[in-house]
Amino acid sequence: MTLKALLDPSSIAIIGASDSPDKIGGRPIRYLKEFGFTGSILPVNPGRPKVQGLDAFPSVADLPEVPDVAIIAVAGENAVESVDACAEKGVKAAIIMASGFGETGAAGKALEARMRERARGRGMRLVGPNSQGLANFGTGAILSFSTMFIESPPQDGTVACISQSGAMSVVPYGLLRARGIGVRHVHSTGNDCDVTVSELAAAVVDDPEVRLILLYLETLSDPENLALAARKARQRGLPIIALKAGRSEDGRRAASSHTGAIATPDRVIDAFFEKLGIWRADGVPDMVRATELYLGGWKPRGRKLAVISNSGATCVLAADAAERFGLPLAEFKPETCSALKSVLPSFAATNNPVDLTAALLTNSGLFSEVLPVVGADRGVDLTLVGIPVSGQGYDYPRFARDTADYLKAGDKPVVAAIPQDKVRTAFASEGIPTFVSEDDAVNALTQFVRHHERMATAKDWTRVEIDPDRPRKMLDESQSLDLLDAFGITTMRRRLCREVAEAVAFQKDLGRPIVLKACSAEIPHKSEHGLVLLRLDTEEAVAEACNRITSTLERMGVPFQGLLAAEMLSGERELVVGGHLDPVFGPVVMIGDGGVLVEAVPDNVLLLPDLDQAEIEGALDCLRIAPLFSGVRGKPPLDRAAIVNVVQAVSRLLLDGQTHSVDVNPLIVSPSGAVAVDALVEQYL
Amino acid sequence: MTLKALLDPSSIAIIGASDSPDKIGGRPIRYLKEFGFTGSILPVNPGRPKVQGLDAFPSVADLPEVPDVAIIAVAGENAVESVDACAEKGVKAAIIMASGFGETGAAGKALEARMRERARGRGMRLVGPNSQGLANFGTGAILSFSTMFIESPPQDGTVACISQSGAMSVVPYGLLRARGIGVRHVHSTGNDCDVTVSELAAAVVDDPEVRLILLYLETLSDPENLALAARKARQRGLPIIALKAGRSEDGRRAASSHTGAIATPDRVIDAFFEKLGIWRADGVPDMVRATELYLGGWKPRGRKLAVISNSGATCVLAADAAERFGLPLAEFKPETCSALKSVLPSFAATNNPVDLTAALLTNSGLFSEVLPVVGADRGVDLTLVGIPVSGQGYDYPRFARDTADYLKAGDKPVVAAIPQDKVRTAFASEGIPTFVSEDDAVNALTQFVRHHERMATAKDWTRVEIDPDRPRKMLDESQSLDLLDAFGITTMRRRLCREVAEAVAFQKDLGRPIVLKACSAEIPHKSEHGLVLLRLDTEEAVAEACNRITSTLERMGVPFQGLLAAEMLSGERELVVGGHLDPVFGPVVMIGDGGVLVEAVPDNVLLLPDLDQAEIEGALDCLRIAPLFSGVRGKPPLDRAAIVNVVQAVSRLLLDGQTHSVDVNPLIVSPSGAVAVDALVEQYL
Repeated sequence: MTLKALLDPSSIAIIGASDSPDKIGGRPIRYLKEFGFTGSILPVNPGRPKVQGLDAFPSVADLPEVPDVAIIAVAGENAVESVDACAEKGVKAAIIMASGFGETGAAGKALEARMRERARGRGMRLVGPNSQGLANFGTGAILSFSTMFIESPPQDGTVACISQSGAMSVVPYGLLRARGIGVRHVHSTGNDCDVTVSELAAAVVDDPEVRLILLYLETLSDPENLALAARKARQRGLPIIALKAGRSEDGRRAASSHTGAIATPDRVIDAFFEKLGIWRADGVPDMVRATELYLGGWKPRGRKLAVISNSGATCVLAADAAERFGLPLAEFKPETCSALKSVLPSFAATNNPVDLTAALLTNSGLFSEVLPVVGADRGVDLTLVGIPVSGQGYDYPRFARDTADYLKAGDKPVVAAIPQDKVRTAFASEGIPTFVSEDDAVNALTQFVRHHERMATAKDWTRVEIDPDRPRKMLDESQSLDLLDAFGITTMRRRLCREVAEAVAFQKDLGRPIVLKACSAEIPHKSEHGLVLLRLDTEEAVAEACNRITSTLERMGVPFQGLLAAEMLSGERELVVGGHLDPVFGPVVMIGDGGVLVEAVPDNVLLLPDLDQAEIEGALDCLRIAPLFSGVRGKPPLDRAAIVNVVQAVSRLLLDGQTHSVDVNPLIVSPSGAVAVDALVEQYL
Repeated sequence: MTLKALLDPSSIAIIGASDSPDKIGGRPIRYLKEFGFTGSILPVNPGRPKVQGLDAFPSVADLPEVPDVAIIAVAGENAVESVDACAEKGVKAAIIMASGFGETGAAGKALEARMRERARGRGMRLVGPNSQGLANFGTGAILSFSTMFIESPPQDGTVACISQSGAMSVVPYGLLRARGIGVRHVHSTGNDCDVTVSELAAAVVDDPEVRLILLYLETLSDPENLALAARKARQRGLPIIALKAGRSEDGRRAASSHTGAIATPDRVIDAFFEKLGIWRADGVPDMVRATELYLGGWKPRGRKLAVISNSGATCVLAADAAERFGLPLAEFKPETCSALKSVLPSFAATNNPVDLTAALLTNSGLFSEVLPVVGADRGVDLTLVGIPVSGQGYDYPRFARDTADYLKAGDKPVVAAIPQDKVRTAFASEGIPTFVSEDDAVNALTQFVRHHERMATAKDWTRVEIDPDRPRKMLDESQSLDLLDAFGITTMRRRLCREVAEAVAFQKDLGRPIVLKACSAEIPHKSEHGLVLLRLDTEEAVAEACNRITSTLERMGVPFQGLLAAEMLSGERELVVGGHLDPVFGPVVMIGDGGVLVEAVPDNVLLLPDLDQAEIEGALDCLRIAPLFSGVRGKPPLDRAAIVNVVQAVSRLLLDGQTHSVDVNPLIVSPSGAVAVDALVEQYL
């Protein structure tokens, strides 16, 4: 494991070591001493014999042993020289804390690349530059200058935070620590010039104590490493939540001046995370909301929610939240209702949500009676306990104990929604995941359940090596359709004609109206130039159309490359299927609704090959027009299998490596079949 | 003001007064004594001469004075009798705390109605039953038994919480008190058998100290009172946020067994709140999130956001959140950028978001330098300050003071996103609205700005009295279209024919293909029965179609009521416009996209008449297909004005009071015009 030196070093040099424990070059020394590091700490400082009470050395060359890791806490040219000195010495990995490199522009990026090449040439790995450092509270290797470990004292735990940004490595850390949750890893990699967040994540996954990984990314240049991390994580049921910032254009611009991030179309990231079973957080609240649920170790069996509260309003609000976030309320079995009847007051309703009414004031043991009844119902997967008001007159410590006893006895998750601090704390201290509102609680449960569903259906992904700079050319429509044919896509009946007579004969053979188009790779929007003529159903009409198109081409100065005569097709719906090779992610396939709103209000889904049937059908279910695939208003369902076939063919076409992009628009879909009637393919030369 | 007695009584009787300050009949006495009530407190208890040290009286009749308000803290039959005794005595208003009435079913509802009629007969108003009581910390009139005033000690303030549910009156109270915000009114009205949340809100609006009203509703039976409250509130710029629970079907079911709520289609509620300028909260977090912004008294001038942070990651995340929630980032003017250049380190970017970088560590006055520069930019409406990490080495109390100074000097809102408790507290204690995350801060700002926009364009609404039980009948298609004609809607050219010859002549006159339909109010889905025949362009085709329809009708046993011959029309898009009389809200108009997905994936908006052009255009802008109204893919825009005309005509038709429902489907819209080609109208007899 090449990154072992960073996570579990036995000796650490600090270049630019400071006697002040509050300077960048001093903090790591303070932390190493304070948080239990047992290996050698080797300060490098040409001006002092001692640093924070430790023997210091004037240079890297003077070090008495070869350190596993060097922290480079000097800036600019000094940092560059230190990288060379460390590589020379045989250091395994160096962490560069200075900023002012890749995030400032092309020159900085070039400098980073030179440092990386020189380090790698001697087998040394680099973290940073612009890194706040790494911290492993399991080994005591705190190679970081973050202020946060003073502000929120650490406690070793089972969560790992790995981030490019220093702030976003310690913000989730701080929020979790404030909730009493232990955190083991807090790593900030900065500009990722060599070791990336993804590669580090793939190493941290091997720490058997880690049970939840939180990532913050501004760039994702090495998806293969994240795919590796996700594969290893799935094998041991370890969830990964990633906040990939830069969804918005403004955000991407800000990211490029922060860590020098390269933009990838944001929806490709969505598709990638979905494929790997990684939950994508939309912001910091999403990253940390459900932590107690993840760490509880439950494996949710389904989405069906039961709600129990002493307030009717909480019952109503929890039911509303369940619908809003997508958790259906469980329908209780008759035996559950009759068991509740014997426990609850006569006027209380015995279905879901369960309103305990004011009976909780007189019977403090009600939770111990109701929870096992609800939990025994096989239709219930999740339970929310809501206590909007408690305090004087209520034995809420007992409610918490009873809920905790039930939780420990079974394997179904329970959450509590409690706005009052002291009541919520009583529940939290019994190990119950707690939230301030019904909304937060249901939101967290939904994320938890959907993330587990996603992990269960996640797939592996392999990088396809592509050279984005290979020269390429557009095929004309006839060539494009022929290529689709070759890959097994049904295309409309057609003939590429050089002569009027051929077109006339085609129409006559077909016996139905045809369409005539100029065939040329040079003119993208043919209909706008009058180069597509429809509904030609007589010899005269076909001949006249041929002549009109030919003379239009002449007028435009475009060489004649033939006329495409084709059957006129209609179907229930026009879809679009396309794909291209992304420079980082390789083949990306798109499937969506077509028609006039295709660009203005897109309804489409991206997928990363290879693609099995279930993935494509899952994507079709995500489209707004999904009801068409099961039939609406008495119409027969559209042919899903035919669409799946087309998407798989496009996927194969892209994986083949010869095609840069393909656009099938429209794909005319009917209850039996899907026919490509226009296509544009760009191939590599 | 009829409800003055409830909000500012000079004497209060407690029927069922208890010596225990923790019983329902004892709590109000404790609170009245503790929270500064200066009028008479009159306990009624037949068994005790003294209650909590006060002289008690054996019955209502024995009271030495006529109390303004009576709290009825006895249950069942005793409560009913107490209502009579109070009414007899001349009490102005009574609060019934007992449950077990309307929420239990029809018998309970009838009992409520009887109590209301008997009270009203003597001029007494009723709150409840099932009410936790009312509390006005401005007058000390705490007529409530809520535990929460012990748990979170009250402090008079400018927020009013008015709720049917007891819990949802005090949950927002408790959350606001935990943030140090004072609350004046905390009212819980229960089943609303007489005084409703809406009527009480209309009274509370008159309290000049109140600056924010939070409502929790499970039913809304008297929209005219809420419209009155909203009108008065708008006149003095007082925002109202309403949580109307029961969005989901499960939620509505739970609400009906909680407060006996009657269901109104949830989207009608949305339309009503939108019209009145009321913000609809989706849950408790939405109710209280932006309180500090509302109480700050700013009037936002627009949505343009500036972001300032010491962390690049926060800049990126805030930009992402701004896009997600719908606040565009301000584009700084050149003078702003150059002014920032002179303040910030050379390597910092000088556009928006503003990354202060680590310069904040060495220049603690940076906020005092940067904020005025950003605030002076006329393109900036709102500012977010993000400080993800601070503490040792940072003079964060100064950051807070500098931000507060800037905030006080100007009129543009500033919010702070700060995950660390102590740093956030420093900002909050300087009067700056603070949030844990960028997401929360941007979410709150968005609500605040959009709510003000909504208040500025809000309209008044008047109830139309309707009798939902009047008998009614369906018009046939010809009658329906004639009615639309009469109200100024363009309909397709047509002729109602009794004879084949008439239909043949119509087609001949028209000179184009026609459609023939059976005209009958009895058959709703005519095309499914082969009673609609298309593209008839010859005498023979028309004649044959007439015969086929006639014989089909004969076979179905439906009397012949004529054949509707009509021109075949096509346009760019099929829309639907409809409307009906809601038993509570009166006329409701719907405008939406038509076509095959009209039911499966609706894209429509509801509106409450009367409707001016701006309201209808605003609704059109909310449709998914809105881009069609400005033209997509080189096509000319659809005729908005023609659609507006149709919607206004449907609105007039419903306000006319003779029509129960109207359904124009499809309305064929082109770049010039909108033509109704089918319609179904139900009229009162």
